[in-house]
This record gives sequence, structure tokens and C-alpha cells, in this order.
Amino acid sequence: MQVAVMGAGAVGCYFGGMLARAGHDVTLVARPQHVEAISRDGLRMETRTFDEYVRLKAVPDAQGAKGADVVLFCVKSMDTEEAGRQLRPHLRPDTLVLCLQNGVDNADRLRTVLPDHAVAAAVVYVGTEMAGPGHLKHHGRGELMIEPSARSTEFAQALNDAKVPTQVSDNVRGALWVKLILNCAYNAVSAIAQRPYGENVKGVGILDVMRDVVDECKAVARAEGVTLAGDPDAAIRAIMETMPGQYSSTAQDLARGKPSEIDYLNGLIVKRGEALGIPTPANRVLWALVKLIETKPKP
Amino acid sequence: MQVAVMGAGAVGCYFGGMLARAGHDVTLVARPQHVEAISRDGLRMETRTFDEYVRLKAVPDAQGAKGADVVLFCVKSMDTEEAGRQLRPHLRPDTLVLCLQNGVDNADRLRTVLPDHAVAAAVVYVGTEMAGPGHLKHHGRGELMIEPSARSTEFAQALNDAKVPTQVSDNVRGALWVKLILNCAYNAVSAIAQRPYGENVKGVGILDVMRDVVDECKAVARAEGVTLAGDPDAAIRAIMETMPGQYSSTAQDLARGKPSEIDYLNGLIVKRGEALGIPTPANRVLWALVKLIETKPKP
Repeated sequence: MQVAVMGAGAVGCYFGGMLARAGHDVTLVARPQHVEAISRDGLRMETRTFDEYVRLKAVPDAQGAKGADVVLFCVKSMDTEEAGRQLRPHLRPDTLVLCLQNGVDNADRLRTVLPDHAVAAAVVYVGTEMAGPGHLKHHGRGELMIEPSARSTEFAQALNDAKVPTQVSDNVRGALWVKLILNCAYNAVSAIAQRPYGENVKGVGILDVMRDVVDECKAVARAEGVTLAGDPDAAIRAIMETMPGQYSSTAQDLARGKPSEIDYLNGLIVKRGEALGIPTPANRVLWALVKLIETKPKP
Repeated sequence: MQVAVMGAGAVGCYFGGMLARAGHDVTLVARPQHVEAISRDGLRMETRTFDEYVRLKAVPDAQGAKGADVVLFCVKSMDTEEAGRQLRPHLRPDTLVLCLQNGVDNADRLRTVLPDHAVAAAVVYVGTEMAGPGHLKHHGRGELMIEPSARSTEFAQALNDAKVPTQVSDNVRGALWVKLILNCAYNAVSAIAQRPYGENVKGVGILDVMRDVVDECKAVARAEGVTLAGDPDAAIRAIMETMPGQYSSTAQDLARGKPSEIDYLNGLIVKRGEALGIPTPANRVLWALVKLIETKPKP
């Protein structure tokens, strides 16, 4: 299959790289420093099971998506509309655009920009980071759950054959919300304190804070008619045990002086809560503090 | 009058210094670096209206309080009981111990350690800092409000004569709660973001956070039977306008790697709220985050 990755950071490089290794025709649309390194040396995939250079195309703009059967849409949540507009002129009528993003509203927002294309949401379960230009580091997992569409079954098969365990599910929304709740409970605290999950949960009062955050999220989800796919509380306990040394993506963004996705995490809960008349004081404090730190004048 | 200052930091040096300038016999019980500088050069008082070296006694331990008519008790809230125990053997039966501290429960806690002495709470309105050893910098105000006691009227007169506007009030508790509410609204946000008040209140969502914090505090105060002395909302608005460049004391403690008084600010609201069955989610997030940052391993 012909696959393009729009916004190939760590997540996009991992799934694009796995598909390229399996023989698919993959083009990454990435930042210039990655394009340069990947064009020269290939994509270095340093995973839990192998470490190799994978050959694939890498370009700096959306034209790279021309002719693709499937686009893996991996930009940050705040770039969804703009990246969708850049993509639009290059899509075929039957191209599937699959959102591999954090947050729960990206596919809906992308559909407003791409009303004539199939857009499907996906839930991503993977731990990865870019360790340098063209250098992907994989820390664990690597599964996808994708929404049904005309091409979803075929593409899920291709992913499974490429060693990416993939499931087509009609409750991707419920799974995205469970992931959102985890992110709301963990990300901002790790970002604000610049401490890893295992230390945070031992902090005075932090488990109570996480419980308040989760209760607010569940109340909003209920009012939105979401059927949670799984138990957020069990998932939260699992993260404490399996990832004690991990810093959240929000913590990494703040440490690098980059804008975070907090508006689409705790910030989304606050906004939806306001619209629904549901109080979300704990999420609001976390959201506002991350924004305050994020917008701090650089020294 | 013979006056001792127990825990002479910026607040204690200001009021002790003003009384010494007016001719009272003042002894500061202070940290060694201040004792050394003050014993050598006097206390440098750099105020809004004068800059001079004031001669007074400075010693490093509680013995300095021996024979005092009044002790200005200025230690941090977490040191109240321990400092009270150190003071006890040196007090006369008729010594008045006046708590010039943040928080609302210091006088009550001190009374459990000094059950046989007159202990009165005071509300302090002053902006000061120690700019170096023995060097006090005064930024503004300098008033006191003190609880009635056998010596309060006489001592208030001495303070007024020493250019410290002082009022004896039977609702010091209500004034301490108003100050507590201000501290709960401003201190933790400034500490966590390490930004001054004027920038904080312009942050996305911060005014809503402050409103949630204040509403929780008012609910706890109501349940405790406190009659607030003044309007916290008006006082909050006044601070935005008059002190936009100010960092909170909690922000200064965190920046210096010192333990803060947060357990006696947002932390007190959380604990009293729990005891009274009043939810305090916004205060809890602020409290827990300050604790998390405060206990971060030093790099």
C-alpha cells in the first residue's frame, strides 16, 4: 500500500517505519532536520527488539502525501486544522486519513476541514521518542485501535502483517476518552513539577488530586454520552507500576520550551464542563498552571 | 518597654527596629548571620522613608527573650510549637506573646505550648524582605491589628507612638482569615509558575482558578463560624493593581529551596475542609503541587 505520514515525529516514524519494513511504500512528511538525516541514512529504528536503518522517503511538505491510500495523521492537536488544509489538495477521493493523535476531538475537527474524505480516529498505544535527527527510540508497546471505514479492515490487516497489532473497534471514542482521562491525571502534574510518574504519585495529596481530576473527567464523559472503553482507574494504577520513571509528553514539551497539548487534555475537560454546566476545578487549576508556565517569558 | 523578637526575619526586624528607634529596649532572636551583622553594624533599615543603621541587641537563642514585657513571635508557622517550647523557660508570668505570623491557627497552637501565658494573635500588613545579613528592605505599609489582652492597649499605644499604626480589634480572627484567603488565591500560583502577581492574573483561566479557590475558602470559613473582616474579593483586586511585580513569599521560599508555609495556607483549607465535609479540589491541587516541587530532590 502507499502510505504517507503527516507530521512524522516519534509516533509517525514508528508506525511508518514498521510499514516500510514490511514492504509498503511509505513517505514521511517531517521537519527538515529529520528529512535530511532520513534521506541520507534512512530512519534509525532503535526498538525493544531490533536496531536498524529503514529506508523510506522523507519530505518537508504535504505534497509527499500525493496518491497515498492511507495518511497517518500525526500532527500535534493544535495543528490539526492547518495540517488538514495543507493535505487537502493532495488527497485522492478514496484516501483514508487516520488520526493517530492525543485528545478526543481531532478526527471531528479534521472532518470539518476534509468534509469529502474518510477520516477515522485511532487510539495509539506506544512509548517512543525522537532521540536525535532521524533517530527513533522505542520504549514499549506499539498497538493501534482504529475506527471502522471503507479501508479500515484492509489497512488493519496490513498493520497486523507489519507486526503492529491492530484492532478495528466501534468504540474508539470510548478508548480515546480513557486515554484522555489518564493524560489528565498524569500529564500536567508531571509537567508542572518536572518529576516522573512514580515520584508524583507518592507526593502528599497527589492521589487525591488525581481522583478529583478523574471524577471530573468521568462526569463530563457521562454528560457527553461516552461509553468508556475500559476502567480508567485500573489503567491509572497500571501506569504507576509499569512506568515510574516516565515524564509525560507535556513535561517534555515544557522542558523544551515548546507549546504543549494541554488545551486538548485538561483544557478540553474545562471547556466541555463549562458548556455542560459541570464543575471542573481540579482540571482547571492544572490546565491554567501549565498555560502559565508555557507562556513564561524566556530568560 | 522591654521587647523581644522571636524569629527575627524581615517582619520581626521591621517591627523590632521601629520600636528600637522609638527608644524601647529591643532584643532580636535571629539567625547567626543576622546576629553577627547586627551586633557589628546595627540593623540596616532601608525603608520607604529612611535608610539608617539602628542599634539593638541581637542574639541567636531564645534566652534573649528573658524579662521581656512583650515578645513579638515571628517564626514560620511550621516552627511555632518548637519555638514556643524554647521560649517558655524565659517568659515572665505577665509577658504578652504576640503572634505576627501567616496562617490562622498559630496563636491557638502556641497556646497549647504556653498555656500559662497571654498569647494574642496579630495581623501583619507589611511588605519587607531581608536583602542581606542584617539588612532589612521595606517595600510598603507597616500596620498591625492585635487581639485584646491585658497588655494589648498599652502595647498598641507604644507601637502607634513608634510610627507603627496599630489597632486593637476583637475580630483579628476574621482579618487573619481574609489574609489567609488572599494568600490561598495568590501564593501557590506565583510559587508554582515562578511568576509575579500581575502576570499571573493575566494568565488563561487563572482568575477562574482564584475564584474557585476563594469560594472554597469562604465555604470553610463559614462552616468554622468565622466572620470575615472585610471583603476578600476587593482585597484581591487591590493586590492586582498595587503589587503587579510582587512574587509571593511561597515563591521566594521555593526559589531558595526552603520549605514553604503552604501546609498552613491552601493545606489548612484542605484539612479543615476534609474535617467539615467541604470539598476543596482547587486548593488541594495547589497545595499538593507546591509540596511536590518543594520536596523535589536537589539536582
